[in-house]
Amino acid sequence: MTYCVGIKLNAGLVFLSDSRTNAGVDNISTFRKMIVYERAGDRCMVLLSAGNLSIAQSVREILQVEQLQERPDVEPLTIWNARSMFDAARVLGNAVRHVYDRDAKALEHAGVDFNVSLVFGGQIRGEGMRLFQVYSAGNFIEATLETPYFQIGESKYGKPVLDRVITPDTPLDEAAKCALVSMDSTMKSNLSVGPPLDLVVYEANRFETDKIVCIDMQNPYYRMLHSSWGQKLREVFDSLEDPVWDDAHTDVPLKVSGGRSKPLKKISRPDERLI
Amino acid sequence: MTYCVGIKLNAGLVFLSDSRTNAGVDNISTFRKMIVYERAGDRCMVLLSAGNLSIAQSVREILQVEQLQERPDVEPLTIWNARSMFDAARVLGNAVRHVYDRDAKALEHAGVDFNVSLVFGGQIRGEGMRLFQVYSAGNFIEATLETPYFQIGESKYGKPVLDRVITPDTPLDEAAKCALVSMDSTMKSNLSVGPPLDLVVYEANRFETDKIVCIDMQNPYYRMLHSSWGQKLREVFDSLEDPVWDDAHTDVPLKVSGGRSKPLKKISRPDERLI
Repeated sequence: MTYCVGIKLNAGLVFLSDSRTNAGVDNISTFRKMIVYERAGDRCMVLLSAGNLSIAQSVREILQVEQLQERPDVEPLTIWNARSMFDAARVLGNAVRHVYDRDAKALEHAGVDFNVSLVFGGQIRGEGMRLFQVYSAGNFIEATLETPYFQIGESKYGKPVLDRVITPDTPLDEAAKCALVSMDSTMKSNLSVGPPLDLVVYEANRFETDKIVCIDMQNPYYRMLHSSWGQKLREVFDSLEDPVWDDAHTDVPLKVSGGRSKPLKKISRPDERLI
Repeated sequence: MTYCVGIKLNAGLVFLSDSRTNAGVDNISTFRKMIVYERAGDRCMVLLSAGNLSIAQSVREILQVEQLQERPDVEPLTIWNARSMFDAARVLGNAVRHVYDRDAKALEHAGVDFNVSLVFGGQIRGEGMRLFQVYSAGNFIEATLETPYFQIGESKYGKPVLDRVITPDTPLDEAAKCALVSMDSTMKSNLSVGPPLDLVVYEANRFETDKIVCIDMQNPYYRMLHSSWGQKLREVFDSLEDPVWDDAHTDVPLKVSGGRSKPLKKISRPDERLI
């Protein structure tokens, strides 16, 4: 499995990926799932991948040479000459389709789904930052103000904290912290998501980044986050009142006299029915 | 979808279920997913169901008349005369198999999986409390000290808080609070899990319970929990330090000079490769 998240903010972009892969629980390996494509001053793009590793690696391999020939009189489109992130995402989608044409049939014979999902974001000089999620069919969607992040892989455990924290106005470092908390929750619940983690933070209109770090479990910041989050979550839980069944002695009774919803009927004899 | 959780503690049992069902997002209904079987002073058993609603309802219907004839000279086993929860769980598993025999083929023709999962727990006089999860094949597993709870339906969003809080020593009301927080996180992230909620708390060795409540979104305790949990979670998040990229000025640097793990290499030219 995999967990990757890409976040688009007004201040920049945040990308985080784990690096565990598994073919069954008895075959665990480490593969990095992030690539940074950067021509400083011109474009900075980050690709995150999840799904079948052979497909993801093939896509990454051919992405570098992938060309979209749109018209005979125009230079073919590549991620290095694309004038917009949208066009670069089209090149990426096309690379997925090439791998499909080459491998899907043989995978199907082997009973393996053609399954890959990608997050691709960045900025090309001349336009704003953009963030895309690319599907197995090579089609893609773009992040918007309302939904400023994309997750791929094991997304459920880490989603609640993103939903609570991330808005387009979130500062970059706070969003990086949020992505790491989201990853921490995921690693706690899904063994097939694991370290080291790759984190990239891109500041808007820089067209390059030096905020790239590989975080292992010895990383001081990650260790602090991991232990403090667990401990403080528990403190918050303890600080909430336990339910009180008798509504006479509390402002927030659990059982309300004459409540609006009907409590369950019990069944107390073999011949009794609910309805 | 559905979310149900059953928890076994030294002090008793806690059961919580939502009541939303859906056949696609355009067909949402309300069905209660919990039944309490109780012969006061002798046995108190609670059944939670998830999966295909027609299967779950059929299982509930025939469970009342289901008999396991083990030997011709012995009275057939039912949930009402079983002398252990294990035997009662066998009767339940058998009910699932009866529905399978009746419906599975026709469901398969219609392209529908035979999909049902059940949590079944309680206490019969003469033994301790027990909690089981019953699968579509009618087989089942029992909760232990190490894993004192079972979830069925949409389990992922609500699992982290259970893992952080629940141990066999957790007091009953605290466990009920934990189940409600778990449900709250699930309802926030999965539209197909919804109110009203049915909560039952069973105290050990009582062989009956009056702690049964139907909780809708107007319930004062649930409203308090919902708003306080969200707000305090956010406060905890804000209280954690943001990452600092420069390791000179912090005890917990994100980027460590000479860190153990290699940062990602960037790709900066079309002919460059990662490896």
